[in-house]
Amino acid sequence: MKKLFAEFFGTFWLVFGGCGSAIFAAGYPDLGIGFAGVALAFGLTVLTMAFAVGHISGGHFNPAVSLGLWAGGKFEAKDLLGYILAQLIGAIAAAGTLYLIVSNKTDFNSIGGFAANGFGDLSPDGYSMTSALIAEFLLTMFFLLIILGSTNSRAPKGFAPIAIGLGLTLIHLISIPITNTSVNPARSTSQAIFAGVEYTSQLWLFWIAPIAGAIIAGFIHKLLFDKD
Amino acid sequence: MKKLFAEFFGTFWLVFGGCGSAIFAAGYPDLGIGFAGVALAFGLTVLTMAFAVGHISGGHFNPAVSLGLWAGGKFEAKDLLGYILAQLIGAIAAAGTLYLIVSNKTDFNSIGGFAANGFGDLSPDGYSMTSALIAEFLLTMFFLLIILGSTNSRAPKGFAPIAIGLGLTLIHLISIPITNTSVNPARSTSQAIFAGVEYTSQLWLFWIAPIAGAIIAGFIHKLLFDKD
Amino acid sequence: MKKLFAEFFGTFWLVFGGCGSAIFAAGYPDLGIGFAGVALAFGLTVLTMAFAVGHISGGHFNPAVSLGLWAGGKFEAKDLLGYILAQLIGAIAAAGTLYLIVSNKTDFNSIGGFAANGFGDLSPDGYSMTSALIAEFLLTMFFLLIILGSTNSRAPKGFAPIAIGLGLTLIHLISIPITNTSVNPARSTSQAIFAGVEYTSQLWLFWIAPIAGAIIAGFIHKLLFDKD
Amino acid sequence: MKKLFAEFFGTFWLVFGGCGSAIFAAGYPDLGIGFAGVALAFGLTVLTMAFAVGHISGGHFNPAVSLGLWAGGKFEAKDLLGYILAQLIGAIAAAGTLYLIVSNKTDFNSIGGFAANGFGDLSPDGYSMTSALIAEFLLTMFFLLIILGSTNSRAPKGFAPIAIGLGLTLIHLISIPITNTSVNPARSTSQAIFAGVEYTSQLWLFWIAPIAGAIIAGFIHKLLFDKD
Repeated sequence: MKKLFAEFFGTFWLVFGGCGSAIFAAGYPDLGIGFAGVALAFGLTVLTMAFAVGHISGGHFNPAVSLGLWAGGKFEAKDLLGYILAQLIGAIAAAGTLYLIVSNKTDFNSIGGFAANGFGDLSPDGYSMTSALIAEFLLTMFFLLIILGSTNSRAPKGFAPIAIGLGLTLIHLISIPITNTSVNPARSTSQAIFAGVEYTSQLWLFWIAPIAGAIIAGFIHKLLFDKD
Repeated sequence: MKKLFAEFFGTFWLVFGGCGSAIFAAGYPDLGIGFAGVALAFGLTVLTMAFAVGHISGGHFNPAVSLGLWAGGKFEAKDLLGYILAQLIGAIAAAGTLYLIVSNKTDFNSIGGFAANGFGDLSPDGYSMTSALIAEFLLTMFFLLIILGSTNSRAPKGFAPIAIGLGLTLIHLISIPITNTSVNPARSTSQAIFAGVEYTSQLWLFWIAPIAGAIIAGFIHKLLFDKD
Repeated sequence: MKKLFAEFFGTFWLVFGGCGSAIFAAGYPDLGIGFAGVALAFGLTVLTMAFAVGHISGGHFNPAVSLGLWAGGKFEAKDLLGYILAQLIGAIAAAGTLYLIVSNKTDFNSIGGFAANGFGDLSPDGYSMTSALIAEFLLTMFFLLIILGSTNSRAPKGFAPIAIGLGLTLIHLISIPITNTSVNPARSTSQAIFAGVEYTSQLWLFWIAPIAGAIIAGFIHKLLFDKD
Repeated sequence: MKKLFAEFFGTFWLVFGGCGSAIFAAGYPDLGIGFAGVALAFGLTVLTMAFAVGHISGGHFNPAVSLGLWAGGKFEAKDLLGYILAQLIGAIAAAGTLYLIVSNKTDFNSIGGFAANGFGDLSPDGYSMTSALIAEFLLTMFFLLIILGSTNSRAPKGFAPIAIGLGLTLIHLISIPITNTSVNPARSTSQAIFAGVEYTSQLWLFWIAPIAGAIIAGFIHKLLFDKD
């Protein structure tokens, strides 16, 4: 139960901090934090909560991560459902809170696309479905290689939250223009619900591609790197 | 006594570095550091002084942090008053020094809003009192969850100043447009005193919301995460 | 074999993440990550994969690094060829994947100079061949001094991936305007192949200068710093 | 002798990387790294070389640091002259190399103010001598409090290069608009020599203020924080 609360708070923080920085601060005139600031924010949500509750739940905060760790032999199948539900509830609660804050702005009109993910017409820079599939698959695959490698018993002790958090920053530095960067189905779902049907109709890609990449990484790590 | 000096210097540095970077460097034409640079500066004040004097005083530098640690059972009530006074004196001394530097600029006119916090008309991007209350409450709550979690005996040893400092950076990446980011009543008070009565009349929110969030986090950590 | 896979994935990630962030995100209007974001991305590719697979292959991801470690007495000559081939294949595979993503953009025209390195007419800010030679030589020399020093048995344990990764960030902060920053012949080769003959005709410099700097650093470290 | 080489290389890197990033990359149109990028570069020069050669020489790279450590009882007077000479030679060699690179630019005209420090008319944002004195004194004082505190036997082991390097980043985030940020007489001297007599006539401030701040910090640390 303690683990599910940890996943709830961690995923809330990931969406509140990552998507929140995009919604509130990215495009502020002249002084805004831009894509680089948003990339840093996403990474630091994971870095901070992995240090804070990683010793409780492992600090997944992402259904693709839970599935990738399962594929890599580091997480039990029986815990998958609970973790994924806690992550989804945390992500959606955070999206609701973001909506509450932004809709109480003096000059509020609409949330536009919120911080939702998309491809084709909904890609920030016009990348096609093919580009989006390749990017989300590969980036999640490397995200899991970083997670599995840096938490391996042979890696330096204690540093994994830094490697994993800054790995997520790096992933955003690369790919915000492509899909607004998902690599996390819970994050994508939470935003699409508020952003509307245009976005929910593309949600399938942000479940399939990250999860496929994560599971392949689990197998790669098990076969190539996790033996003596 | 040694502890109170540590809190004095630490809070001086937090206000001098964080608010100073905002006042001197954020809006410099073309080359300015923007909100992302200010966010980094605030976080690094805490990261650096937590490494430097954290082993002396615990490195709070913030009345809400002292109260949250007390609520979480990690700080004694009898030390609260001394710590909070040292923090306030350090913060106000830093604000005075910033005033001295800026008023000795060749073309000095007025300090404007200094780096004070505000909502409604005084919010950088027009967020209402409701938005400000939610944001300051939640961000301080998560700040304390990070502090209590990363300093827990089960977390990796030595890394807490990184998690906590970069956590404060993250908080600023999210919320400078909302309230100019407080999560710290001493920081807010020090700036409002110089910025004038408009700002001091809003100070209550930057005491109440952060402290409420911090205390709730103390209870959450004690109930959910700090037992075997 | 496990080591060669680690070098393949690591160098793939270096080119995919570093060059990818430059191609996709650097120049995005208003919100783009700029040279500082690209510098951070390059550094984080090495930081993350050094934590993930450094304990397997040593985490070179760069022929100049392998040669510099050999010159410093930390890597065996018999492993050089395999490592350099794995690095080249990883880099070129990443460049191909970047091409696939970018050519599937809705409004795709041409890749321009990709993220290739160059001097003279092909230098981002018009630096001559002499400037490029000095910069690439010196920056790779210091990169190897950082690598050899931070992995030395007397340096703090476990921190080397942070020093080395952020060292590569620093190198990019300095020199993107000069040569688009190489210090890595595999990275340069992978981009030039796609960018065209103009760029391949300058490739010699991005093999010779980094390798010379790396080998000199190996000797400096062995003679000055690596004895009692 | 080994120690003096370490100080030579470290201070070379500080000036080459910090001032170099300012000269080459800060103002590049649209994509330039700005003051925040320069701040990061300065900090990373120290972070990287402190991990690389800190275990050899202590990693000062700055006459004010050597004097502050002496005042704090952590460095012997007999070693001061050698260290300061090695630092000056390293800094000036780096400045010469920067000149070589920049003067080989295709459209080279003049180096302008190089990356020299100044106040009054030579302050980037018009800060007076009084402002400059306060800022350089206080920032160097806190730099030394960070150094002395984070290297203290009670601080977490191995993290000092992170605290010190990012402390220098923070100092630059605050004060580039004031004096172009010195806190280091060797760095200031190396640039003023090339920037010309206007700048050398202000050099006294960038020796006196940093050294005074450093020595005061040494005494504060010894009296307040370094006893049981």
